[in-house]
Amino acid sequence: MKLTKEQSQEIKDQQSQQNKTKRVTAPELEKILYEAIPVLDHGFIRVIDYMGDDTSIVQSARVSYGKGTKKVSTDSGLIKYLMRHWHTTPFEMCEIKYHVKLPIFIARQWIRHRTANVNEYSARYSILDKEFYIPKPQHMSGQSTTNKQGRGLNLSRKDTEKFLNILKDDAERNYKHYEEMLNEDQSGEVKDDNKQGLSRELARINLTLNTYTQWYWKIDLHNLLHFLYLREDAHAQYEIQAYAEIILNKIVKKWVPHTYSAFKEFQLESYNLSKTAIEIIKKKLKGQKITFEKSGLSKREWDELSFKFKFK
Amino acid sequence: MKLTKEQSQEIKDQQSQQNKTKRVTAPELEKILYEAIPVLDHGFIRVIDYMGDDTSIVQSARVSYGKGTKKVSTDSGLIKYLMRHWHTTPFEMCEIKYHVKLPIFIARQWIRHRTANVNEYSARYSILDKEFYIPKPQHMSGQSTTNKQGRGLNLSRKDTEKFLNILKDDAERNYKHYEEMLNEDQSGEVKDDNKQGLSRELARINLTLNTYTQWYWKIDLHNLLHFLYLREDAHAQYEIQAYAEIILNKIVKKWVPHTYSAFKEFQLESYNLSKTAIEIIKKKLKGQKITFEKSGLSKREWDELSFKFKFK
Amino acid sequence: MKLTKEQSQEIKDQQSQQNKTKRVTAPELEKILYEAIPVLDHGFIRVIDYMGDDTSIVQSARVSYGKGTKKVSTDSGLIKYLMRHWHTTPFEMCEIKYHVKLPIFIARQWIRHRTANVNEYSARYSILDKEFYIPKPQHMSGQSTTNKQGRGLNLSRKDTEKFLNILKDDAERNYKHYEEMLNEDQSGEVKDDNKQGLSRELARINLTLNTYTQWYWKIDLHNLLHFLYLREDAHAQYEIQAYAEIILNKIVKKWVPHTYSAFKEFQLESYNLSKTAIEIIKKKLKGQKITFEKSGLSKREWDELSFKFKFK
Amino acid sequence: MKLTKEQSQEIKDQQSQQNKTKRVTAPELEKILYEAIPVLDHGFIRVIDYMGDDTSIVQSARVSYGKGTKKVSTDSGLIKYLMRHWHTTPFEMCEIKYHVKLPIFIARQWIRHRTANVNEYSARYSILDKEFYIPKPQHMSGQSTTNKQGRGLNLSRKDTEKFLNILKDDAERNYKHYEEMLNEDQSGEVKDDNKQGLSRELARINLTLNTYTQWYWKIDLHNLLHFLYLREDAHAQYEIQAYAEIILNKIVKKWVPHTYSAFKEFQLESYNLSKTAIEIIKKKLKGQKITFEKSGLSKREWDELSFKFKFK
Repeated sequence: MKLTKEQSQEIKDQQSQQNKTKRVTAPELEKILYEAIPVLDHGFIRVIDYMGDDTSIVQSARVSYGKGTKKVSTDSGLIKYLMRHWHTTPFEMCEIKYHVKLPIFIARQWIRHRTANVNEYSARYSILDKEFYIPKPQHMSGQSTTNKQGRGLNLSRKDTEKFLNILKDDAERNYKHYEEMLNEDQSGEVKDDNKQGLSRELARINLTLNTYTQWYWKIDLHNLLHFLYLREDAHAQYEIQAYAEIILNKIVKKWVPHTYSAFKEFQLESYNLSKTAIEIIKKKLKGQKITFEKSGLSKREWDELSFKFKFK
Repeated sequence: MKLTKEQSQEIKDQQSQQNKTKRVTAPELEKILYEAIPVLDHGFIRVIDYMGDDTSIVQSARVSYGKGTKKVSTDSGLIKYLMRHWHTTPFEMCEIKYHVKLPIFIARQWIRHRTANVNEYSARYSILDKEFYIPKPQHMSGQSTTNKQGRGLNLSRKDTEKFLNILKDDAERNYKHYEEMLNEDQSGEVKDDNKQGLSRELARINLTLNTYTQWYWKIDLHNLLHFLYLREDAHAQYEIQAYAEIILNKIVKKWVPHTYSAFKEFQLESYNLSKTAIEIIKKKLKGQKITFEKSGLSKREWDELSFKFKFK
Repeated sequence: MKLTKEQSQEIKDQQSQQNKTKRVTAPELEKILYEAIPVLDHGFIRVIDYMGDDTSIVQSARVSYGKGTKKVSTDSGLIKYLMRHWHTTPFEMCEIKYHVKLPIFIARQWIRHRTANVNEYSARYSILDKEFYIPKPQHMSGQSTTNKQGRGLNLSRKDTEKFLNILKDDAERNYKHYEEMLNEDQSGEVKDDNKQGLSRELARINLTLNTYTQWYWKIDLHNLLHFLYLREDAHAQYEIQAYAEIILNKIVKKWVPHTYSAFKEFQLESYNLSKTAIEIIKKKLKGQKITFEKSGLSKREWDELSFKFKFK
Repeated sequence: MKLTKEQSQEIKDQQSQQNKTKRVTAPELEKILYEAIPVLDHGFIRVIDYMGDDTSIVQSARVSYGKGTKKVSTDSGLIKYLMRHWHTTPFEMCEIKYHVKLPIFIARQWIRHRTANVNEYSARYSILDKEFYIPKPQHMSGQSTTNKQGRGLNLSRKDTEKFLNILKDDAERNYKHYEEMLNEDQSGEVKDDNKQGLSRELARINLTLNTYTQWYWKIDLHNLLHFLYLREDAHAQYEIQAYAEIILNKIVKKWVPHTYSAFKEFQLESYNLSKTAIEIIKKKLKGQKITFEKSGLSKREWDELSFKFKFK
């Protein structure tokens, strides 16, 4: 990730603000406010603004449940209770706003999370940066043979090199043609004053899906956790996991540490047993022998369950 | 509106906070943060938290439109432009959280605005306050004869008095029975130790619709303006207008003054001409005579249009 | 539940329709279309319209996953797979519309499910029916001592009777006053031609929370299942459970039988183990002894887990 | 647009269904159900399912407003009334589901409409078709000089030809490389049995933004009209207008003809006058002379207003 001078200066200016407020603040999050945390080769995530902290969740839960919550004496205890019982509305009372730079193919997955606010850089108005996501060699994996949507073994070194060259060459050629059709370069400088460029909204259709875009993305904490639940998961595409991992461990952890712990304990690292699986576990705890054939599970379910609980 | 000692103290404590932040702040709004602004007889609105200000709208618009917005030099100019062209997403980048005390029949209208976050006081857990909305005599109007959902002329003084007494007596009697069934009073004090009270979730069904409830309500600025557009309108029920009026003129105005002005100019006080009405105005501007019969409008539309534009 | 002649006739008319369509149909659901299924004392649920069936879910999943789904040969297998992996968007492809008559205090819980479309009977325009929810004696329970929001033991027969009378009397008196203030009875008949009634939007505030209202409610299948997950649960208030139970077992089961089974297996009757609970189960399966003290769980979590899995 | 044999057969099969239903049907829409209506060079729109018609809107409005709506005797009159007063919830009671084939850069605009349900073809699971959007020569316009996001004059014939070749060549080369990296062709045939292909989720990042994708898209009528309001507009990109135009005039018109007319009259072809513009019109109607300088409008607003109402 390389920031332009202009961007670096803007970040410095934003970080040098010293405002007074009566609102609650999250001091650990304030320390990294506006900072561009690098992701992938050219991407970044910046926290631009936030509202509330762990105490805000507690505060609104106590409004809902009134005296009913008095007995749960600690904030951390109440947050655990809420998370465990899927009482989600108190977590909606916190909000965070990010500035994200990300490849378009990732943006397309990300945007599927509808309960969020987005302002994306518009390539109808302005010229996209000349930046493309090119995977690292170790991420150039083949199609998984077991998981229809995932990656399997790495390719040969030769193919990896060859394919990386294809990705680079095609992205660059297409971008060069983009500038040519626009009759402008990426800084907006007109190339040939005697010529008219193709409209931006059309010229951009020549770009590849690994071109970087950027947006402001604002979301409440409950919906953010749901995003992380799906995108920090091993089944998500590696490139979006990379963003989710940073949001979870570098940002949410600093912002709402009690929520972070409760989320890991009761959701992220929890395991859902189906009705049939519950019965199997109960029988095994009583010492009964259960085989796949008598389990009532599909092969896939049985394999997953027996692996998870280390059936001999 | 009367606050308990406990509530007044809590507000004082919240207002005495002096936190440092690098986030943008809205100094005029900070001045009234946490303050309970009275509405109706026992209701209030308090701003509990907020995110962003006018500059946040501008900032995200500039991310979207990139260099395209450079020419609109002022923040105020850009906000007007956005409002005029219904570019709504930049206004979603600001967020505000309220603590509202309001009668249940108003809460039922309010909650129809779905794009918001709510934590309501739960009468399944806790006992509702002994507070009911009783209209002022001047608001005791009869059914409108022209507007199927609205109010018309005031009632006679005698009927007004009689009906106000009904409202008071019924609310109080039902509340007294509520306490009796609960075997507790409103402070949670058990009345008769040898008795078991009816569960709260059932006892409350005896309460009247003018009983006050309270909630935390969080919403983004775009959706808040839409709420105000509908609820600050003369066709809305007076009691919800009272809340909308305060949110608009006492809160939004302090928080995002440029947005406030643009909202009034381009939405709240704007007027929508139908396709047929456009043609009528055009003809009249050319000096042509148009009668209702030849207008192509319904009677209602014609009356409204000719009143609005003072056709002689 | 008693329907007016007018309503019964309307239902008959709707049911006698015989239209031809190229859309998919759900024959079992067609049989009960428009029928008013009774709930509580005066409530009902009617299916008014629907879109799609189990095959619609499969169809859109196959569009998403393309050839990836070819191997899962049966519709039922694919639906199980989707449900098990929380692939929720295919279930959004079915839609259902209900006409529901329900007490206002239940409507207030119900409406919290925001991703749905609602048209409620407006008491600003029209007069509410004279119908109140009065619990059956066996539902007149005291407050639970363990569950802050729930019901516990039944009241004494004497108190039950007394409180039922209070509920009936208060609801009826308040309704009588409602008619008096309106100067109209429930059929809209003006009582005294020389008098003006109070506006409907005000008169209704005298009604009790157990007054029945009605609405059209439209929701997609995914969000309906989420509603049922929360409202068919033993922690939900009995009166909303009564509606959820009918929707689940009398309607969803007929409409999308494969989805119904998968929902029960993988969600409704599943159990979520926290990270710590997973470790406890694993240790117990290996024959290790775990006591509460060493479990790392709270007392409540331990009790729930050991009860669920019948730790000796 | 060219359909595969498989697709044509599927459409025939779907269209040959003859089901009986008690639901309301829209006979004109039934006639084109499942049909692939061509859009752009390779795109299409197909109506897959629908729920409700004009009478469903009326039905739910009558539930809301009760007797208040009795006086508006015709369905068409009531729909006009609802549309004119922005009573939007009755229009949410109709739902429609489309199968759409569209270029990725259009899909990215389209998906910004969040209140809808989507299942998109996943290029993580399956191989994308070899189809790219290439504009017709007459659509190869330069950047507008007045509208920052739009198109202006056409390019020279020479540049048009040159740029169209660039678009074709780059899309095809990138697709060829996509197949090469996958070690599969578009039908999923493995190219070299001794080689492992790059995972699909990575190989696709080489594709250009004009590659076609497809999805199922389901939306309620109110939100569909809002989509059309924005996307059928002259400021929308031509390529998305092409889809909106067909949805509006070939589908909505057949499905809900009264709503279609009211939408055009009161929304699509209406005009919003700002507070200041209202005053100008009023003054001009009284015969007063207003110049730009004294108008209180910005230059842009004045130009637009005076053009719209043909100020001499």
